[in-house]
Parts: sequence; structure tokens; C-alpha cells
Amino acid sequence: MSLVVIGSVAFDGIETPFGKVDRIIGGSGTYISFSASYFTKNVKLVGVVGDDFPKESIKALEERGVNTEGLQIKQGEKSFFWQGKYHLDLNSRDTLVTELNVLADFDPIIPESYQDCEYLILGNLTPQIQKTVIERLKKRPKLIVMDTMNFWMEIALDDLKAVLKMVDVLSVNDEEARQLSGEHSLVKAAKKILEMGPKFLIIKKGEHGALLFHKNEVFFAPALPLEEVFDPTGAGDTFAGGFIGHIAKTGDISFENMKRALIYGSAMASFCVGKFGPEALYTLTDAQVQERVQEFIDLVQFEIELV
Amino acid sequence: MSLVVIGSVAFDGIETPFGKVDRIIGGSGTYISFSASYFTKNVKLVGVVGDDFPKESIKALEERGVNTEGLQIKQGEKSFFWQGKYHLDLNSRDTLVTELNVLADFDPIIPESYQDCEYLILGNLTPQIQKTVIERLKKRPKLIVMDTMNFWMEIALDDLKAVLKMVDVLSVNDEEARQLSGEHSLVKAAKKILEMGPKFLIIKKGEHGALLFHKNEVFFAPALPLEEVFDPTGAGDTFAGGFIGHIAKTGDISFENMKRALIYGSAMASFCVGKFGPEALYTLTDAQVQERVQEFIDLVQFEIELV
Repeated sequence: MSLVVIGSVAFDGIETPFGKVDRIIGGSGTYISFSASYFTKNVKLVGVVGDDFPKESIKALEERGVNTEGLQIKQGEKSFFWQGKYHLDLNSRDTLVTELNVLADFDPIIPESYQDCEYLILGNLTPQIQKTVIERLKKRPKLIVMDTMNFWMEIALDDLKAVLKMVDVLSVNDEEARQLSGEHSLVKAAKKILEMGPKFLIIKKGEHGALLFHKNEVFFAPALPLEEVFDPTGAGDTFAGGFIGHIAKTGDISFENMKRALIYGSAMASFCVGKFGPEALYTLTDAQVQERVQEFIDLVQFEIELV
Repeated sequence: MSLVVIGSVAFDGIETPFGKVDRIIGGSGTYISFSASYFTKNVKLVGVVGDDFPKESIKALEERGVNTEGLQIKQGEKSFFWQGKYHLDLNSRDTLVTELNVLADFDPIIPESYQDCEYLILGNLTPQIQKTVIERLKKRPKLIVMDTMNFWMEIALDDLKAVLKMVDVLSVNDEEARQLSGEHSLVKAAKKILEMGPKFLIIKKGEHGALLFHKNEVFFAPALPLEEVFDPTGAGDTFAGGFIGHIAKTGDISFENMKRALIYGSAMASFCVGKFGPEALYTLTDAQVQERVQEFIDLVQFEIELV
């Protein structure tokens, strides 16, 4: 039984107050796969790149145990390219360039060997493609996690709402939750979104942590206060990869275990932001991940005995 | 042994997206005292009002067990008045009116009965007045907590830095921590501020919770995600009151106990924002406070067994 990841596999051009890279590998599928690979060796990636995408980057994924059979390589075409510039506080950014290239007519092919999919995570892509992937799986996975963004709420809201009815967990950031629900209060927003289909809602608040809503329950995972944040690109995807990776590793989709998954996701994201691109996720050790999780435990755990 | 509170006792005019009040009682001393009164009955207030300040509001403080012997009432003068308007997201506000009135030449008098002060909290006021209060206590309290704001960093930075050397705990918000330290990263900001005098630093992040720094340790207390926030005025002071109230009640100034104090402070603040002014703090029960603290426990506690 495997974890299937679908998402963009792409080039990013990134400018932050701390530096600039013209062209570095990125994409939701890339970050999610690298991150999840620290929890399970049964990660299967669906995506598409042009023949400009470096073979060594695909090999880096494979070396982390990621199956790339479902990663199409389009000869004579170019990979998706996104370029953005972060504002001074790193909490917001402007998109400068979006070149869809191979993503423009991406038809996700699910290899037969991926049909054992038990956990499916739909990284940020058009809702239509996310829906197609679900439909092409012969057996409904045990858990489907969907990430999306405000862009699709603006240009493909109906498609997005259709996919929402098919998934178990939705992951969005705070502004996206507000936009999707029309509510400023995140508690009210969560109530409305949980009526749209998903049984669990993750609201990512960047440096302010993440909330998990389910029925009337709510859990909060902090972000680790860091001395240096170089590049937030991919942090949300890395978070999602750690989240689904822990779920896939443990096979437990209870709310209690999702709390732990949120902490593991937050720990992975805290590594990601320390370097440009996904580089920080290439060579972590299990000990480093465990040590980082211990920092989260120390950060929020307290003992109060109520009378 | 007592908890001495110094701060403004005043009128506020408040406009939020949810309503408007022209004149309601407020002030750092008021909020801190009400909040702390849920933890200890030995709260002693130092402040000044004009004869326009309602007797029944002073009585409300006394009914909560707050000693008002040190609250001067200036005949023929007017109480401090602040008027502000919150932005849509409630995270920022504009000050529209500041009438110092009795605060302009406030000379804090410490009654002899306050000289048993074991815990001192300096609510937001001019650093010079905060310093005077420390100097007028014959015995150095076991713990001195200071709250301040960006305004004093702009017009009285040297005075503020002088007081910083005299206190144990500083409480500021994230923007103030950045301004005081010149560092954007809160981790770096904390390091610099802890070199300025205080042994503990609390950084309040409003709806995003609060951080406690001490040496190389850091603790994070979340804010409770709320359906409705009507008025954030006084939330920081209410937080500080719950913090010092718990410390005074337990007599324990360890980092471990300060973690609990941060949670109690956060719980008190979560009540405060539900109504205009300090009204929500008049008639809470112990059971309500305990129940709210349980919500904080449920919000952040998780079990991870690291190998």
C-alpha cells in the first residue's frame, strides 16, 4: 500500500530579502515527495516535466526512495516555471512570472503500479487535474488530502468545490480559508468549509503555526521561532508532505494521530525555510528530525493540574 | 506579601468593526487589577484619576478584592482619556485622541501598607514613573514585571532602557520587540533584549499567541481561536494580569511556572476580547477560568514518543 503524491515538478525563480536564485527546482510535488520520504519509502509521484528538467534532480528524488514512474517527461517541452518576490516580512509575495509550459495540457497518467494507493495527496494544481487523479484510481484511497490556493478560488471555484466533496482533508492558508468561506474569523471559516465536504481542515498560518479542525475539535501546532528564514517557498508543501508521510507511516487516520502528523509536518517545514529551494530536505537524518520534533515538544508542552 | 499594580486608570473611546463606545473605563492598571484578582486577593493598585471617574468603577475593583488606597483621586481634574479605532482585522489600530489630563503630572504615591510588595507589575506608563515606583519601594520585590509600548521607545528610549535594567520580566508585542532590538527575527530580537536587563521576555503576538524567552529556552502559548472578537483593547494588560496573578498566587518564579502563568494570562485575555472594555472580567467564576484553561490544554497538547 502506497502514498501517491500529485503536484507540480518545476523550476522556481525566487527573490527574498536575503538573496535571489534565478532557477532552482521546486513545485508542490517535489517538496511533498522529499518531505514524505522521511516517513515512508513508498512514495509514488505523479507529475510532468519538460526535457529541461535536470536528470540529477529526478535521481535525487529516487535516491530518497520516491517512485517516479508516474512523472512524465515531455520531450521538446519546457517545465513549469514560477517566479516570485517576497516582501520584507516574508509573509506575502508577488508573483512576477508564471509559465505553465508542460502543465498547460497536463494529463495525469496513473501507472498500474500506483493502484495500490492507500493515501493520496493532491498538491496544488488545477482542481480539474486533482479530480481526474481521484477518478483514475480504481479503489478509493483510505485518506485523500488536498492542498489548493486562492488562484483557483478566483478562476475555478466550481471545479474546486466539486473536488472538495471528494476529499477528506483540505489544507489552505488563513487568507485562503477566509476567501473560500467569506468569514474573517477562522473558527467561523472552518465551520463553513467543513460543510463543503472535507472532514478535516488544516489552516496554515505560516510563521504563526497551523490549526487542525474536525467536527467541534481544534488543535494548534506552532511554528518554531527561527533565527533565520531564508526562503518560505515550499514550506506549506513540505508541511503537507510531513503530515501525510506520518499518517502513511502509522496507518492511523484518527484526530489524535493527525495532531502528531501536524507536528511532524511543522518540523519538516522548519528545515525547509532555512535554505533556498528544497535543498535542506535532501540529506536530513532521522536523528535531526526527531531532535527537531523534541524542540516542538519543549516549545508548547506545559503541566497544569486543574482542580 | 502583596502584588502591587501600577498603571493607567482611565476612560477609553473605542471603535471596532463591530461597534463603538464613546467612553468606557479602561487603562492598564484597571485591566491588570481585574485580571489578577482572579488569582490573588492581595492586589494593591497605584494610579491616578480625576473626579470624573465613576465611584462605582472603583467600587467594582474593591469588590474584586483590589486595594485602591494607592489610587489618587484629583479633585477638579479629569481622568486620562484615549480614543482609538481598530482596523478591519483588529490587529492594528489608530490612536485618534490622547488627553493626558491627570497623568500629565502623576506622582505615584506608595502607601505604607503597600511596602510588603512581593510582586510588582508596571503597567504601560512613562518609563520615568515606572522607575519612580521601583525606587519608592523600600525592599526590592521578588519579581518585577514591566509592560511598555512603542510610543516610549520613540520619545523616551533612554528612560526606558534605564528601567529595563531594573526589571525581571519585560512584556512587549512583536512589533515593539522588533523596534526595541532592531531585529526582524523574534529569536534574534529576544537575544538582544535579554542583554538589556530583563531575565525573561514575553513577546505578545495578539491572536497568534505569546512567546516567553529565558536564556536559551523558549515557550509558546497559543491564543484561543475565537468565533467572535469584539474589542482587543486591554487584552495585553489582561494577559499580564493573569500572568502575574498566577505567579503571585503560587509564589513560584521558575521558568516552568511562568509557562503556566502564560497560559492563565492567555485564558484571561480570551475572555477580555469578547466584550467592550473590561466588562467581561467583572463576574467570571473560577470554574469558567478553569474550563477555559482546559480548552488551551486541549488545543496544544499532543503525545509523541520519540525513539
